[in-house]
Amino acid sequence: MSAIYRRPVPLAKCYRLLNHGPTVLVSAAHGQQRNIMAAAWAMPLDFQPPKVTVVLDKSVWTRQLLEASGHFVINVPTVSQVDIVETVGSTSGLEIFRADEQDKFKAYGLETFSGDVVDAPLLEGCVAWLECRLIPEPHNQSQYDLFIGEVVAAWADERVFSDGHWHFADHDSLRTVHHVAGGHFLVIGDEAVGSVLHRVEHPLA
Amino acid sequence: MSAIYRRPVPLAKCYRLLNHGPTVLVSAAHGQQRNIMAAAWAMPLDFQPPKVTVVLDKSVWTRQLLEASGHFVINVPTVSQVDIVETVGSTSGLEIFRADEQDKFKAYGLETFSGDVVDAPLLEGCVAWLECRLIPEPHNQSQYDLFIGEVVAAWADERVFSDGHWHFADHDSLRTVHHVAGGHFLVIGDEAVGSVLHRVEHPLA
Repeated sequence: MSAIYRRPVPLAKCYRLLNHGPTVLVSAAHGQQRNIMAAAWAMPLDFQPPKVTVVLDKSVWTRQLLEASGHFVINVPTVSQVDIVETVGSTSGLEIFRADEQDKFKAYGLETFSGDVVDAPLLEGCVAWLECRLIPEPHNQSQYDLFIGEVVAAWADERVFSDGHWHFADHDSLRTVHHVAGGHFLVIGDEAVGSVLHRVEHPLA
Repeated sequence: MSAIYRRPVPLAKCYRLLNHGPTVLVSAAHGQQRNIMAAAWAMPLDFQPPKVTVVLDKSVWTRQLLEASGHFVINVPTVSQVDIVETVGSTSGLEIFRADEQDKFKAYGLETFSGDVVDAPLLEGCVAWLECRLIPEPHNQSQYDLFIGEVVAAWADERVFSDGHWHFADHDSLRTVHHVAGGHFLVIGDEAVGSVLHRVEHPLA
């Protein structure tokens, strides 16, 4: 349904999809297996070529799929999806797989669509998606659980992201969420504009 | 003035000061020189011992001071300080120093106070402060401009952060800001609570 609002985002501006620090969902697939998890620790790392970083604990299945496939997707969810964020952030895809319920997408009725470049599923209902190619950095991955990806395609919902800026004023249900802890989120609010201050005058300087 | 509201944050919970993705100010000092800059690309990296990461371009003076001293501070500013954020994010401390105006703090009338552990200045009027010790990672620093720090002390304004959670409802002027691009910020909004969904029933599964 949201496909009619989905537009490609120029790679030079895709960092702006994460610049304001939303909690994201990381999805990955390998072979017949796929998974999705919540991650509050994700941020842009570079403009051009665009890179992102995300922290993935050694215990999570998404990390195994990502390491095996070399690809992942950063999905930016909305306040309407806050229960989905909490759910995929506190359940184990591997446990669901072993219980013969296939995966979190099927277990929780989550719809997906395919990206342009990577095999990982993109979650319907989000407001932005970054398709990423893993840049292997074994020391960071083992020492810090820190993964770096190059963004190879990016998408956003044009109702709230256009001309390189977020515009949430008329779409409260599409605002991004920012996790604090234990299912407690903050929803992104209104705009503010910052201006460069004049310097203080120091007569004796 | 805000000192009366400043309380130490237990290190085990200091990640929550950054978990919702605010734009931060990074300050550092070395010898008689000090500087402060804005950084949207900062996030928690670990719980215990707590670590953070921040991206610092090779061109910025704060990076040189931080590399020389081995310490830095992550300050979390408020919407009341949005002009300060824009100002320290778009001016050069080194240029100010060379113009004999000392530093950004003096040039823009910014008040600071001292931390418990590190030498870098903490900015008055912010709502959280993380004192950090640099964990040298030469490859990350040169290849990705990515710096890792261990948090050695943390503070927050008890009016908006207590018991490990942010509470902005009665303090709109103390809400955190989240930069998008070009002086355009989003202010953090209200709370939302996420709940784990029930699994879809699959009669034939």
